[in-house]
Amino acid sequence: MADSPTIDAVFHNAVIVTMDDAFRVLQDGAVAVAGDRIAAVGPSADVLAAFPCAVQTLDLGGRIVLPGLVNTHVHTSQQLARGIADDVDLMTWLHGRIWPYESHMTEEDSYASTLLCGIELIRSGVTCFAEAGGQFVSEMARAVELLGFRACLTKSTMDCGDGLPPNWSCCSTDDCIQSQKELYEKHHNTADGRIRIWFGLRQIMNATDRLLLETRDIAQKLNTGIHMIGFFSKAGVKVSHCPASAMRMLGFAPIREMLDSGVCVSLGTDGAPSNNRMSIVDEMYLASLINKGREAYISGTTNPTALPAETVLKMATINGAKAVLWDNEIGSLEVGKKADLVVVNPFTWSMVPLHDSIANIVYCMRTENIESVMCNGRWIMKDHKIMNLNEEEVISSAVKRANDLLARAGINLPRRMNYV
Amino acid sequence: MADSPTIDAVFHNAVIVTMDDAFRVLQDGAVAVAGDRIAAVGPSADVLAAFPCAVQTLDLGGRIVLPGLVNTHVHTSQQLARGIADDVDLMTWLHGRIWPYESHMTEEDSYASTLLCGIELIRSGVTCFAEAGGQFVSEMARAVELLGFRACLTKSTMDCGDGLPPNWSCCSTDDCIQSQKELYEKHHNTADGRIRIWFGLRQIMNATDRLLLETRDIAQKLNTGIHMIGFFSKAGVKVSHCPASAMRMLGFAPIREMLDSGVCVSLGTDGAPSNNRMSIVDEMYLASLINKGREAYISGTTNPTALPAETVLKMATINGAKAVLWDNEIGSLEVGKKADLVVVNPFTWSMVPLHDSIANIVYCMRTENIESVMCNGRWIMKDHKIMNLNEEEVISSAVKRANDLLARAGINLPRRMNYV
Repeated sequence: MADSPTIDAVFHNAVIVTMDDAFRVLQDGAVAVAGDRIAAVGPSADVLAAFPCAVQTLDLGGRIVLPGLVNTHVHTSQQLARGIADDVDLMTWLHGRIWPYESHMTEEDSYASTLLCGIELIRSGVTCFAEAGGQFVSEMARAVELLGFRACLTKSTMDCGDGLPPNWSCCSTDDCIQSQKELYEKHHNTADGRIRIWFGLRQIMNATDRLLLETRDIAQKLNTGIHMIGFFSKAGVKVSHCPASAMRMLGFAPIREMLDSGVCVSLGTDGAPSNNRMSIVDEMYLASLINKGREAYISGTTNPTALPAETVLKMATINGAKAVLWDNEIGSLEVGKKADLVVVNPFTWSMVPLHDSIANIVYCMRTENIESVMCNGRWIMKDHKIMNLNEEEVISSAVKRANDLLARAGINLPRRMNYV
Repeated sequence: MADSPTIDAVFHNAVIVTMDDAFRVLQDGAVAVAGDRIAAVGPSADVLAAFPCAVQTLDLGGRIVLPGLVNTHVHTSQQLARGIADDVDLMTWLHGRIWPYESHMTEEDSYASTLLCGIELIRSGVTCFAEAGGQFVSEMARAVELLGFRACLTKSTMDCGDGLPPNWSCCSTDDCIQSQKELYEKHHNTADGRIRIWFGLRQIMNATDRLLLETRDIAQKLNTGIHMIGFFSKAGVKVSHCPASAMRMLGFAPIREMLDSGVCVSLGTDGAPSNNRMSIVDEMYLASLINKGREAYISGTTNPTALPAETVLKMATINGAKAVLWDNEIGSLEVGKKADLVVVNPFTWSMVPLHDSIANIVYCMRTENIESVMCNGRWIMKDHKIMNLNEEEVISSAVKRANDLLARAGINLPRRMNYV
C-alpha cells in the first residue's frame, strides 16, 4: 500500500466476505477503491491509515460487503414475457408462447426488456451476467451500457428451423457466423470493458453440425466464450445451475456430484417465463434447499449437510466469474480486481439474529437486504436507488410494450379462476 | 346491503381475489368493512353506491387484495435461533443446538422471539398462524395480542424424556394435560377472539400412549385442535406442508397425490432454525416449484402443470383456514367473515408485467410487494409500517437476548470460512 494511486473511496467498518482462495472474512474490514479497481482489502484501521487522503471514506456500520454476484444464464429479452407461460407443458411453453413472443419482438422491445430485467438483476446484487441468447444484441449492449453493470452478450443462433414459427426466416450457417463476428467487432470490450460478446447456440435441434464446429473454431480464435444449452464439451466445461427453471422443465441436476468431481458449477436464473423471480438471491436459497432434499432420492434420506452455505456462496461469486471466463478480474474482493461489490444491510427483521452470517446470507437474505451495488468502481444502486435511469419510466414503458407485444403475437392466456 | 351497519371503510378500485367457493376474482372490486367483519364484496361502483356514508373510502389504485394468508406450522419461540443449526445433521440439530436453546430460554426470551417472528409473519402477509409448540404459551399470547393478528397457540408437550437435556425435568402425563387445560381457560378466545388454545404433542418419541389418548379426548371435549408432528389420525386429517424445512430433514412430500385424493393441504414455514426465511410468500414459490420438479422422480419427467398457481394460493388461504379449524370466519373474502386481508402492490420491478396476476402472486411476489395487512378489521401493517410496536426496539432487544441465550446455553458455532 506504499506507493498509493489516487484512492477514490475507502469503505470501512464492514464484514468483508472476500471469497478469495483462503476464504478470508474480515470482521472489521475495509475496501479501498481506485478508479475501477480494488486498491486494498484489509482491517479497517490499516486501510484507513494507509489512505488518509481518500476522496471519500464511508463507515458501513458493520454491514456486509460481498463480491458482486454473477448470474450465468439469463434471457434478458424475455423479461416482458413474465407470466405468459406458467403451469403449461413444454410444447405449449415453446410453440404457443415463447416462439410467438420472441418472433414478434422489436429492437425497442428488447431494449425495454433488458432494462427491466437489469433493474431486477441489480436489485438482487448482480454485477455481471451471461446472456443466454436473444435476438437484438446491440439493444442489449445499449441497455447494459446505461445500467452500468457487466455482461457477456450472446445472440440467439439457429441455422436450421425445426419447429420455428413461419415468420422467422432461418439464417444460413454462414450468416449466423458472420452476424456474430460483426457483433463481436462492434461491441466486444466496449463500455469501459464491461461488455463482452460470446457466441451462441440456442438449442441442439436448431443447430447443424457445421454451425457447432465453426462456432467452436471462431470462439477459440477470438478468445471468447460459447453459451450453449444441453450438451457439453468434455474439457473445461462450466455449468450454470438454474434451480427454479430446472424444477419446471428438467428436474434436479446432480449438483453435489458435479461439485465433488471438481466441475465448476455456478448459478443462473434463466428467463422470466421460466422462473419467474429473476433473483440470484433466491436461486442461492433454492440451490441449497433442493440439493439437500434431492439426496432423499439418491441415498434414501435427505442430507442437510449437502451444499453448505459457503459452497452456495462460492457458486454465486467466484464460480460464476470462472463460468464467464472473467475470474482474473471479478468474483472475489482482491487487490487488483475490478471494484464490483455489494453492500448488504443484515440488521433487518429478515436476517437477525446473526449467529452465522454466512448461513444467513444464503438462507435468509432477501433482495430488500441488498442496499447498494457497485460495478467497475461506480455505484449502480445506492441506498436502494437504481442510479442511471428513471425506474418508474422504465417500468411503465416496459409494461406498455409487453401488452402490445402479446397482442401483436396473438398470445391469449386462459384465465385462471372466475374473473367477474 | 340494504340495512347496512356502520361501515368503517370501503376499499375500492382493486383486484379482489376472493378465494370463495366459486374462485371469483373481481377486476374492479371493493370490500366494505364494518367493525371486525366484511360487510360487502362486489364491484366498486355497487359497493360505493351502497355505502355512501362509510367513515373512510380508500382508492387502492388497481392493487390486489388477498385474504390474509395462514401459516399452519411455525415455532415462534425459535426465531432467536435463526442460523444456529444450518448445514448440520439431525442429531446435531436437535441435541447440540435446539434442545439446549429451548431449555435455556426464559419467558422474556419467548416474548421477544414471538414479537420478532410476528414482524416477519405479518410482512409476509400472514394474519393467522398455528404455533407448532413452544414452552411459554402465555408469553406468546401476550405478543400475539400486541401484534394484532390471530393464532392457535400450542404448548410443547412431552411426558417422557428420551434424549431431552438434563436440565429439562419431564412432566407427568397429568401435569401435561392439566397445564394445557389451564392455558385453555386463561387464553382461549381472548384478544377479541383472536387467540385460540390448541393441545400439543411435540414428538411421537416423547409422548406416552396415555398422553396421546387423553389429549385426543380433552381436545374433543373442549372443541379445539391438536397440533402434532409425524403421525395422523385417519379421519379429517389436515396437512401442513413446510417445503423449505422438509427439504432439509425429510425430503419431498407427495403433495400432488394428497391433493388429488382430497386431503386438505396447507402451508407452513416451521421454525427459523429449520428454514430460515419465515415467509409464506416464499413457501408458495417453493411449493409450486419443488412439486413440479418432484414429478421427475415419480413419473420420469417433470410436470410443469403440477400444483398450478391457483392451487398453491388455495393452500395458503382457504386450506390454511380449514387446517386451523377456522374456515367459518377466515381464509376467503366473503360477507360475514372476519376482515383479514392483504393489500399487494404489484406495480414494481419484481412483479411486472402482469399478464397473469394469479401466477405472478405465486411465482413473483415478494415480501416487498405486501404493502398493508389488516386483521380483525384493524391495520396491523400499513404502507410497510408495522403498526402496534416499535420495530427497531423489538429487533434490538431480540438480538441482545439471542446472543445472551446462546452464551447461557453454551452453544458455540464453528466458524465457516477463515475469519480474520
